[in-house]
Amino acid sequence: MKVTLSALDTCESSFTPLVVLELAQDVKEETKEWLKNRIISKKEDGDDNDDFLTMAECQFIIKHELENLRARNEKMIPGYPQAKLYPGKSLLRRLLTSGIVIQVFPLHDNEALKKLEDSWYTRFTLKYQPLDRIRGYFGETIALYFGFLEYFTVALIPMAVIGLPYYLFVWEDYDKYVIFASFNLIWSTVILEVWKRGCANMTYRWGTLVMKRQFEEPRPGFHGVLGINPVTGREEPLYPSYKRQLRIYLVSLPFVCLCLYFCLYVMMIYFDMEAWALSLHESSGSEWTSVLLYVPSIIYAIVIEIMNRLYRYAAEFLTSWENHRLESAYQNHLILKVLVFNFLNCFASLFYIAFVLRDMKLLRQSLATLLITSQILNQIMESLLPYWLQKKHHVQVKRKVQALKADIDATVYEQVVLEKEMGTYLGTFDDYLELFLQFGYVSLFSCVYPLAAAFAVLNNFTEVNSDALKMCRVLKRPFSEPSANIGVWQLAFETMSVISVVTNCALIGMSPQVNALFPESKLDLILIVVAVEHALLALKFILAFAIPDKPQHIQMKLARLEFESLEALKRQVHMRPARPGCGRLEKLPEVRLPRRVFKAQWACTGLANEAHGPEPEGGIEGRQ
Amino acid sequence: MKVTLSALDTCESSFTPLVVLELAQDVKEETKEWLKNRIISKKEDGDDNDDFLTMAECQFIIKHELENLRARNEKMIPGYPQAKLYPGKSLLRRLLTSGIVIQVFPLHDNEALKKLEDSWYTRFTLKYQPLDRIRGYFGETIALYFGFLEYFTVALIPMAVIGLPYYLFVWEDYDKYVIFASFNLIWSTVILEVWKRGCANMTYRWGTLVMKRQFEEPRPGFHGVLGINPVTGREEPLYPSYKRQLRIYLVSLPFVCLCLYFCLYVMMIYFDMEAWALSLHESSGSEWTSVLLYVPSIIYAIVIEIMNRLYRYAAEFLTSWENHRLESAYQNHLILKVLVFNFLNCFASLFYIAFVLRDMKLLRQSLATLLITSQILNQIMESLLPYWLQKKHHVQVKRKVQALKADIDATVYEQVVLEKEMGTYLGTFDDYLELFLQFGYVSLFSCVYPLAAAFAVLNNFTEVNSDALKMCRVLKRPFSEPSANIGVWQLAFETMSVISVVTNCALIGMSPQVNALFPESKLDLILIVVAVEHALLALKFILAFAIPDKPQHIQMKLARLEFESLEALKRQVHMRPARPGCGRLEKLPEVRLPRRVFKAQWACTGLANEAHGPEPEGGIEGRQ
Repeated sequence: MKVTLSALDTCESSFTPLVVLELAQDVKEETKEWLKNRIISKKEDGDDNDDFLTMAECQFIIKHELENLRARNEKMIPGYPQAKLYPGKSLLRRLLTSGIVIQVFPLHDNEALKKLEDSWYTRFTLKYQPLDRIRGYFGETIALYFGFLEYFTVALIPMAVIGLPYYLFVWEDYDKYVIFASFNLIWSTVILEVWKRGCANMTYRWGTLVMKRQFEEPRPGFHGVLGINPVTGREEPLYPSYKRQLRIYLVSLPFVCLCLYFCLYVMMIYFDMEAWALSLHESSGSEWTSVLLYVPSIIYAIVIEIMNRLYRYAAEFLTSWENHRLESAYQNHLILKVLVFNFLNCFASLFYIAFVLRDMKLLRQSLATLLITSQILNQIMESLLPYWLQKKHHVQVKRKVQALKADIDATVYEQVVLEKEMGTYLGTFDDYLELFLQFGYVSLFSCVYPLAAAFAVLNNFTEVNSDALKMCRVLKRPFSEPSANIGVWQLAFETMSVISVVTNCALIGMSPQVNALFPESKLDLILIVVAVEHALLALKFILAFAIPDKPQHIQMKLARLEFESLEALKRQVHMRPARPGCGRLEKLPEVRLPRRVFKAQWACTGLANEAHGPEPEGGIEGRQ
Repeated sequence: MKVTLSALDTCESSFTPLVVLELAQDVKEETKEWLKNRIISKKEDGDDNDDFLTMAECQFIIKHELENLRARNEKMIPGYPQAKLYPGKSLLRRLLTSGIVIQVFPLHDNEALKKLEDSWYTRFTLKYQPLDRIRGYFGETIALYFGFLEYFTVALIPMAVIGLPYYLFVWEDYDKYVIFASFNLIWSTVILEVWKRGCANMTYRWGTLVMKRQFEEPRPGFHGVLGINPVTGREEPLYPSYKRQLRIYLVSLPFVCLCLYFCLYVMMIYFDMEAWALSLHESSGSEWTSVLLYVPSIIYAIVIEIMNRLYRYAAEFLTSWENHRLESAYQNHLILKVLVFNFLNCFASLFYIAFVLRDMKLLRQSLATLLITSQILNQIMESLLPYWLQKKHHVQVKRKVQALKADIDATVYEQVVLEKEMGTYLGTFDDYLELFLQFGYVSLFSCVYPLAAAFAVLNNFTEVNSDALKMCRVLKRPFSEPSANIGVWQLAFETMSVISVVTNCALIGMSPQVNALFPESKLDLILIVVAVEHALLALKFILAFAIPDKPQHIQMKLARLEFESLEALKRQVHMRPARPGCGRLEKLPEVRLPRRVFKAQWACTGLANEAHGPEPEGGIEGRQ
């Protein structure tokens, strides 16, 4: 294996390697030359990157610039006649799909990474994460995930604190969960509203709060017949919308329904096993059969994990086959598919136990097993196993590089070789999904198992560290992505909290304690519970509506910004016709926008100059 | 009474009187002179108004320009030392509050009005209203109201058609309302979603769909201590937010609750009367006592109307006393107060009859009386009475003017004198409120009284005409106001349709027909009804979420617009640094935006140059 570092990096004096572009081994010289020239000619009228931009922002810009290298008059990639081009086609995408470029990824900055790690997770102390630093190193999207994880963990602490003594002292008195369920109700509504405001605070500081969605281009996997895009008037692949709709409704939807049915079927098998274990235990009554009681739950938890992972591949394949034009539409359809299945798969058995079997003891036991098993599995599969594998690989590479006795800068070379073999971070999806399911376990039924919150807190404390380890040491550094909020996940969590109001009300209505209040008329009880539930739901919507999404001081600052830019526009408009002389342009009144806004506008609007596509087509994020 | 027309109008050759500014009778000459100069000096760098703008838009601009005449170095109004000014204070507002200017209103254009009337309501034919013409004459807000009224009437027709034979053939079989209630459910969800799309279509054509909220100034009635506005940095009255909150929560809220309690109390009196009438009828059994049965309902309907009107004054007084800084915040608080009270006042008795008394016969009878009485009262109070009064006044004025033997243009003079005495149109609030309550009557309980929809359709056919008459002949011409949608009313109607899902499910659950299916277990029935209701609500939210608010082709056009403006920006950015020569500014590539967008941007952003305020403070419209 022979690897050479391109000359691109040696022509500047103070050079910090930022992004790696890995070419295939057999790429022709002429192709390399052409690509280098195209990149450099783009670069010449670039900006100077002093510390005005964070490193993550620099890498985001480089990625954007690379993706927006577009074919002008080239008919094909030089040296590769089979890799066709048409005017406006993104070069990088064609290079990637033709296998000439294998991957593009940013390099870690070991110095900055060390500093980040020291303040983040290596020293085990109880303190807030350095979110601003994380944002500086990994970008806003990942920093927001860690911010949310931290916020959620802190928000769980009151639940855990209330649950713990509750659990310790009234162990068998699990029908006294009315207070706990009521607390659950309020808690799940309030934390989501408060998060929205905290998030606005954070992203205002980072300058991404007022960021505008940029025009999206067709996603890499999108294919179709070349035609004229009605929005841009440019030639690009088109795919008729009705065909996509047919694929969605005639294939994907039935498939998803089938999967949902299958997971209900598996659930029924689990209950059969459960009954079998119970009968076995009762007939023999020995010590080891009481352990056997937990076996069906553990097996079921593992099966759930496996089904979730398998279904994930199927969902990705199907969604990609649906051939969505935009990345956002693709993501929305994927998230919807995965969320529905995961929700049913993880919670169907609990709903069945709670509302059909009405067996609170079994519910508690299942909840505990599901929660703990899935948490342990996740921690192992997600961070520890990859970390161990990668550690081993690290040692091998070190040995190899030393054997090479490299004539070039060995550190950068070693770093590139090491990092290019690391796994790729596939986005925050799985991390949020994990939190989402945890939120479900805690808010839907935790009143029957008050320890759930405590376990979740415990898990999240280690999760912060293992996720941080994963980001810093296990995976390739991801490209940063600006974002204003946690997007569709806010909606998902809010939906879950609505469902939790319903389940908690039902649990309260079913509790023996409440039933004792209505010894004669079950009917009155149900009507009252339904009325209370409706009132709570209404209250929830009113609360969500009445609490402003942005804190007062942020609203004020945004209003001032808008006022100032309108004032500046006014002065500009007034000055132009009045003195249409020469060189007046330079004397226009200076517009003093705070730095962060300028940056945000530049990073979001300015960069979108070359972009193509229309707005997303009313997918999950289509409405606000 | 001596009236002179100002010289302002005679200095131009082709003069169309657009707006009247009525001064008090004893205004000093120096004040008049100063005001005239200020208006004219503003006017000089105005735009030329050819038919590029509709007349309504011209009047909107004149109003805006007048409102934005601001004090520069004047310390007081010349001639009125007691009318203090400070830099930046709107002159017109001070003139109005000092009683120097009595009113400002636009004049009717008799020729255009005649044309509009002919195509609108004078010839009684079944056809759509000329919405574009209405918009041209009265502006978007009023045109949208008439558009919504028409849409809603058409949407009611299927309900009426289904209800009519139902009513005719199965008269006493009122328990068979399951089908009707189910239809109600779907209908009320679908029509609101469809309206949103139709409305987007319309306002896109009018160029107000993408309109931005302009900065709002303090509303005229707002008072406080002079201070520095933190947003604009200008001197203006400030009023601490906590004081307003105290007034809202310590005075307004208790008062509203008291009123709500009072109207429940009145309701109970009504039921006592009802019972008394029934017992009287049963004991005597004569013909005239059966008429007596309807008397309590009629009295109650009239009392409701009176209470609604009285409460309205109280709500206006309280909201104005709360001293909101922005007109929008004032409106939101007023609408909220009025809506809650009107809802309870109109529907509480029906809810009581339906769910406490469970007397479907009485429910039908009450619903019919309430609906018909309120419709008749409204038609009389709103249009016919004012029209009659104004006709009488018209004749008097004509006689007076003829007696004057005026030396000036008698037609304009007569018109001004006539129109300045006409009532002022107070906005679309009352009209929408009427429709909102009608929607309530039709969607909440109409399954027990299928004729409701037919009556509503009938009422709305005449309502279109009487409202049109009111706008054209009875009231002063209102200033036009651009708007993108029906605003907070969309939300109000959607809330009502959610409530109607709940009531209809409950009615179905209570129907003897459904009860017959579960002869043994009432419990199962209720659980199933609740489950179905939850599923329907979920479906409703999913539907509202999945149906895009804007039709595909509008989304496409908006995307193209945004793309084109970004492209234009890109070219501009690229050209400036490249050739920083002299006079290059004029050679920037022309930005070809469709006319309607330019107009909208100009009318909304451009005019907002001088504005002051921050965004509304998270009131009803604060969230999207």
